[in-house]
Amino acid sequence: MDWSELEGAPNGERVSLDDALAAIRYDEQGLVPAVAQQHDTGRVLMLAWMSAETLRETLATGRVCYYSRSRRGPWRKGERSGHEQRLVELRVDCDGDALLLRVEQRGPACHTGRERCFYLRVRDDAVEVTDAVLVDPADVYR
Amino acid sequence: MDWSELEGAPNGERVSLDDALAAIRYDEQGLVPAVAQQHDTGRVLMLAWMSAETLRETLATGRVCYYSRSRRGPWRKGERSGHEQRLVELRVDCDGDALLLRVEQRGPACHTGRERCFYLRVRDDAVEVTDAVLVDPADVYR
Repeated sequence: MDWSELEGAPNGERVSLDDALAAIRYDEQGLVPAVAQQHDTGRVLMLAWMSAETLRETLATGRVCYYSRSRRGPWRKGERSGHEQRLVELRVDCDGDALLLRVEQRGPACHTGRERCFYLRVRDDAVEVTDAVLVDPADVYR
Repeated sequence: MDWSELEGAPNGERVSLDDALAAIRYDEQGLVPAVAQQHDTGRVLMLAWMSAETLRETLATGRVCYYSRSRRGPWRKGERSGHEQRLVELRVDCDGDALLLRVEQRGPACHTGRERCFYLRVRDDAVEVTDAVLVDPADVYR
Protein backbone atom coordinates (compact mmCIF):
# COMPACT_ATOMS: atom_id res chain seq x y z
CA MET A 1 0.00 0.00 0.00
CA ASP A 2 0.89 3.64 -0.41
CA TRP A 3 0.04 6.09 2.38
CA SER A 4 -1.35 8.56 -0.13
CA GLU A 5 -4.24 6.14 -0.74
CA LEU A 6 -5.62 7.16 2.66
CA GLU A 7 -5.34 10.91 2.16
CA GLY A 8 -8.98 11.47 1.33
CA ALA A 9 -10.38 8.51 3.25
CA PRO A 10 -13.28 9.03 5.66
CA ASN A 11 -13.19 8.25 9.37
CA GLY A 12 -13.29 4.53 10.04
CA GLU A 13 -11.59 3.51 6.78
CA ARG A 14 -9.21 0.67 7.50
CA VAL A 15 -6.23 -1.07 6.01
CA SER A 16 -4.78 -4.28 7.37
CA LEU A 17 -2.12 -3.93 10.05
CA ASP A 18 0.24 -6.19 8.13
CA ASP A 19 -0.03 -4.03 5.01
CA ALA A 20 0.48 -0.89 7.05
CA LEU A 21 3.49 -2.26 8.93
CA ALA A 22 5.05 -3.35 5.65
CA ALA A 23 4.65 0.20 4.36
CA ILE A 24 6.35 1.98 7.26
CA ARG A 25 9.15 4.07 5.82
CA TYR A 26 12.23 3.26 7.84
CA ASP A 27 15.41 5.28 7.38
CA GLU A 28 18.74 3.96 6.07
CA GLN A 29 19.39 2.39 9.48
CA GLY A 30 16.03 0.65 9.41
CA LEU A 31 14.59 2.93 12.09
CA VAL A 32 11.59 5.20 12.47
CA PRO A 33 11.22 7.99 15.06
CA ALA A 34 8.66 7.35 17.81
CA VAL A 35 7.25 10.07 20.04
CA ALA A 36 6.00 8.94 23.45
CA GLN A 37 3.16 10.95 24.98
CA GLN A 38 1.62 10.32 28.40
CA HIS A 39 -1.91 9.34 27.40
CA ASP A 40 -3.89 11.23 30.04
CA THR A 41 -1.89 14.42 30.62
CA GLY A 42 -0.79 14.88 27.01
CA ARG A 43 2.77 15.49 28.19
CA VAL A 44 5.32 14.64 25.50
CA LEU A 45 7.83 12.47 27.35
CA MET A 46 10.55 11.55 24.89
CA LEU A 47 11.53 10.76 21.33
CA ALA A 48 13.20 7.47 20.55
CA TRP A 49 13.52 5.04 17.63
CA MET A 50 11.96 1.77 16.59
CA SER A 51 12.96 -0.94 14.19
CA ALA A 52 10.43 -3.18 12.42
CA GLU A 53 11.22 -5.84 14.99
CA THR A 54 10.77 -3.66 18.08
CA LEU A 55 7.59 -2.14 16.66
CA ARG A 56 6.13 -5.63 16.22
CA GLU A 57 7.21 -6.60 19.72
CA THR A 58 5.62 -3.47 21.16
CA LEU A 59 2.32 -4.22 19.45
CA ALA A 60 2.44 -7.87 20.46
CA THR A 61 3.26 -7.33 24.12
CA GLY A 62 1.75 -3.92 24.87
CA ARG A 63 5.03 -2.96 26.50
CA VAL A 64 7.06 -0.37 24.64
CA CYS A 65 10.30 -1.63 23.16
CA TYR A 66 12.53 0.83 21.30
CA TYR A 67 15.70 0.27 19.36
CA SER A 68 18.79 1.58 21.13
CA ARG A 69 21.09 3.21 18.59
CA SER A 70 23.99 3.27 21.07
CA ARG A 71 23.61 -0.37 22.09
CA ARG A 72 22.44 -1.46 18.63
CA GLY A 73 19.66 -3.66 19.85
CA PRO A 74 16.20 -3.81 21.40
CA TRP A 75 15.65 -1.52 24.36
CA ARG A 76 12.74 -2.59 26.49
CA LYS A 77 12.02 0.72 28.15
CA GLY A 78 12.43 0.31 31.91
CA GLU A 79 14.33 -2.97 31.68
CA ARG A 80 16.94 -1.64 34.13
CA SER A 81 15.10 1.23 35.83
CA GLY A 82 11.65 -0.33 36.12
CA HIS A 83 10.29 2.82 34.47
CA GLU A 84 8.47 0.99 31.73
CA GLN A 85 5.87 2.22 29.30
CA ARG A 86 2.58 0.46 28.63
CA LEU A 87 1.20 1.13 25.17
CA VAL A 88 -2.26 2.71 25.21
CA GLU A 89 -2.49 3.66 21.55
CA LEU A 90 -0.17 3.66 18.56
CA ARG A 91 -0.53 6.12 15.72
CA VAL A 92 1.17 6.46 12.36
CA ASP A 93 1.57 9.73 10.50
CA CYS A 94 0.33 10.66 7.04
CA ASP A 95 3.37 9.45 5.17
CA GLY A 96 4.25 6.49 7.34
CA ASP A 97 7.58 7.74 8.59
CA ALA A 98 6.81 8.69 12.19
CA LEU A 99 5.01 7.04 15.10
CA LEU A 100 3.11 8.48 18.04
CA LEU A 101 2.81 6.26 21.10
CA ARG A 102 0.30 7.21 23.72
CA VAL A 103 1.60 5.47 26.81
CA GLU A 104 1.17 4.93 30.51
CA GLN A 105 4.57 5.79 31.91
CA ARG A 106 5.62 4.17 35.18
CA GLY A 107 7.90 6.53 37.11
CA PRO A 108 10.00 9.13 35.32
CA ALA A 109 10.59 8.66 31.60
CA CYS A 110 13.99 10.35 31.52
CA HIS A 111 17.27 8.70 32.46
CA THR A 112 18.03 11.83 34.53
CA GLY A 113 15.14 10.91 36.83
CA ARG A 114 12.83 13.59 35.49
CA GLU A 115 9.27 13.08 34.28
CA ARG A 116 10.22 13.73 30.67
CA CYS A 117 13.30 14.08 28.52
CA PHE A 118 12.19 17.50 27.25
CA TYR A 119 13.16 19.27 30.47
CA LEU A 120 15.09 22.10 28.80
CA ARG A 121 13.32 25.20 27.54
CA VAL A 122 14.63 28.02 25.39
CA ARG A 123 14.02 31.28 27.18
CA ASP A 124 15.40 34.58 25.89
CA ASP A 125 19.10 33.97 25.27
CA ALA A 126 19.36 30.85 27.38
CA VAL A 127 18.27 27.26 27.74
CA GLU A 128 16.79 26.66 31.15
CA VAL A 129 16.09 23.56 33.25
CA THR A 130 12.36 23.49 34.01
CA ASP A 131 11.78 20.09 35.63
CA ALA A 132 12.97 18.74 38.95
CA VAL A 133 14.75 15.42 39.34
CA LEU A 134 12.17 13.10 40.90
CA VAL A 135 14.29 10.01 41.36
CA ASP A 136 18.04 9.83 41.84
CA PRO A 137 19.45 7.93 38.84
CA ALA A 138 22.09 6.47 41.16
CA ASP A 139 19.31 4.61 42.96
CA VAL A 140 17.83 3.35 39.71
CA TYR A 141 20.73 2.27 37.52
CA ARG A 142 22.78 0.17 39.90
CA MET B 1 28.97 22.11 26.47
CA ASP B 2 27.90 18.55 27.05
CA TRP B 3 24.24 17.81 27.78
CA SER B 4 25.20 15.50 30.61
CA GLU B 5 26.36 18.58 32.57
CA LEU B 6 22.71 19.46 33.10
CA GLU B 7 21.56 16.05 34.27
CA GLY B 8 21.54 16.86 37.96
CA ALA B 9 20.92 20.60 37.60
CA PRO B 10 18.13 22.23 39.61
CA ASN B 11 15.19 24.11 38.13
CA GLY B 12 16.19 27.48 36.75
CA GLU B 13 19.77 26.49 35.90
CA ARG B 14 20.69 28.09 32.59
CA VAL B 15 23.20 27.74 29.82
CA SER B 16 23.60 30.25 27.02
CA LEU B 17 21.45 29.71 23.97
CA ASP B 18 24.48 29.92 21.69
CA ASP B 19 26.27 27.19 23.61
CA ALA B 20 23.16 25.02 23.59
CA LEU B 21 22.52 25.49 19.88
CA ALA B 22 26.14 24.63 19.13
CA ALA B 23 25.69 21.39 21.08
CA ILE B 24 22.57 20.17 19.26
CA ARG B 25 23.37 16.71 17.94
CA TYR B 26 22.36 16.74 14.29
CA ASP B 27 22.35 13.52 12.29
CA GLU B 28 24.56 12.74 9.29
CA GLN B 29 22.30 14.92 7.13
CA GLY B 30 22.65 17.80 9.56
CA LEU B 31 19.06 17.41 10.79
CA VAL B 32 17.30 16.94 14.09
CA PRO B 33 13.73 15.64 14.55
CA ALA B 34 11.20 18.21 15.78
CA VAL B 35 7.83 17.31 17.27
CA ALA B 36 5.10 19.94 16.95
CA GLN B 37 2.46 20.01 19.67
CA GLN B 38 -0.52 22.36 19.79
CA HIS B 39 0.29 24.39 22.91
CA ASP B 40 -3.16 24.53 24.51
CA THR B 41 -4.77 21.20 23.62
CA GLY B 42 -1.61 19.11 23.91
CA ARG B 43 -2.41 17.47 20.57
CA VAL B 44 0.71 16.16 18.84
CA LEU B 45 0.37 17.51 15.32
CA MET B 46 3.36 16.27 13.34
CA LEU B 47 7.00 15.32 13.31
CA ALA B 48 9.38 17.07 10.94
CA TRP B 49 13.05 17.97 10.74
CA MET B 50 15.17 21.04 11.34
CA SER B 51 18.63 22.06 10.28
CA ALA B 52 20.81 24.43 12.33
CA GLU B 53 19.80 27.18 9.93
CA THR B 54 16.04 26.59 10.11
CA LEU B 55 16.18 26.22 13.89
CA ARG B 56 17.88 29.62 14.15
CA GLU B 57 15.35 31.13 11.76
CA THR B 58 12.47 29.70 13.81
CA LEU B 59 13.85 31.19 17.03
CA ALA B 60 14.55 34.52 15.37
CA THR B 61 11.17 34.96 13.70
CA GLY B 62 8.83 32.99 15.95
CA ARG B 63 7.41 31.33 12.85
CA VAL B 64 8.23 27.65 12.50
CA CYS B 65 10.57 26.80 9.64
CA TYR B 66 11.47 23.16 9.07
CA TYR B 67 13.92 21.60 6.66
CA SER B 68 12.23 19.77 3.80
CA ARG B 69 14.09 16.55 3.09
CA SER B 70 12.30 16.10 -0.23
CA ARG B 71 12.90 19.64 -1.45
CA ARG B 72 16.26 19.90 0.30
CA GLY B 73 15.75 23.36 1.65
CA PRO B 74 13.94 25.50 4.21
CA TRP B 75 10.23 24.82 4.56
CA ARG B 76 8.38 27.69 6.13
CA LYS B 77 5.36 25.79 7.37
CA GLY B 78 2.27 27.23 5.72
CA GLU B 79 4.16 29.06 3.00
CA ARG B 80 1.78 27.65 0.39
CA SER B 81 -1.24 26.63 2.45
CA GLY B 82 -1.31 29.53 4.91
CA HIS B 83 -1.41 26.93 7.68
CA GLU B 84 1.54 28.30 9.53
CA GLN B 85 2.79 27.59 13.01
CA ARG B 86 3.69 30.25 15.54
CA LEU B 87 6.28 29.12 18.05
CA VAL B 88 5.06 29.32 21.64
CA GLU B 89 7.88 27.40 23.29
CA LEU B 90 10.86 25.38 22.15
CA ARG B 91 12.27 22.52 24.20
CA VAL B 92 15.36 20.37 23.82
CA ASP B 93 15.66 16.85 25.15
CA CYS B 94 18.14 15.44 27.63
CA ASP B 95 20.77 14.50 25.09
CA GLY B 96 20.25 17.33 22.64
CA ASP B 97 19.08 15.25 19.70
CA ALA B 98 15.35 16.00 19.61
CA LEU B 99 13.22 19.15 19.75
CA LEU B 100 9.71 19.76 21.04
CA LEU B 101 7.90 22.75 19.60
CA ARG B 102 4.80 23.96 21.36
CA VAL B 103 2.99 25.88 18.65
CA GLU B 104 -0.13 27.77 17.72
CA GLN B 105 -1.26 26.04 14.54
CA ARG B 106 -3.32 28.06 12.07
CA GLY B 107 -5.73 25.74 10.25
CA PRO B 108 -4.96 22.05 9.80
CA ALA B 109 -1.36 20.94 10.27
CA CYS B 110 -1.53 18.01 7.83
CA HIS B 111 -1.18 18.28 4.06
CA THR B 112 -4.25 16.04 3.80
CA GLY B 113 -6.34 18.85 5.34
CA ARG B 114 -6.63 17.16 8.73
CA GLU B 115 -5.87 18.73 12.10
CA ARG B 116 -2.79 16.55 12.59
CA CYS B 117 -0.58 14.20 10.62
CA PHE B 118 -1.10 11.39 13.16
CA TYR B 119 -4.57 10.58 11.88
CA LEU B 120 -4.05 6.82 11.65
CA ARG B 121 -4.53 4.57 14.66
CA VAL B 122 -3.65 0.91 15.10
CA ARG B 123 -6.74 -0.95 16.20
CA ASP B 124 -6.82 -4.72 16.46
CA ASP B 125 -5.48 -6.04 13.16
CA ALA B 126 -5.96 -2.83 11.23
CA VAL B 127 -4.88 0.76 10.88
CA GLU B 128 -7.87 3.06 10.94
CA VAL B 129 -8.49 6.65 9.87
CA THR B 130 -9.67 8.60 12.93
CA ASP B 131 -9.73 12.22 11.81
CA ALA B 132 -11.92 13.96 9.27
CA VAL B 133 -10.58 16.10 6.45
CA LEU B 134 -11.33 19.69 7.49
CA VAL B 135 -10.09 21.50 4.42
CA ASP B 136 -9.89 20.20 0.86
CA PRO B 137 -6.21 20.16 -0.11
CA ALA B 138 -7.24 21.01 -3.66
CA ASP B 139 -8.42 24.38 -2.35
CA VAL B 140 -5.20 24.97 -0.45
CA TYR B 141 -2.37 23.88 -2.74
CA ARG B 142 -3.28 25.59 -5.99
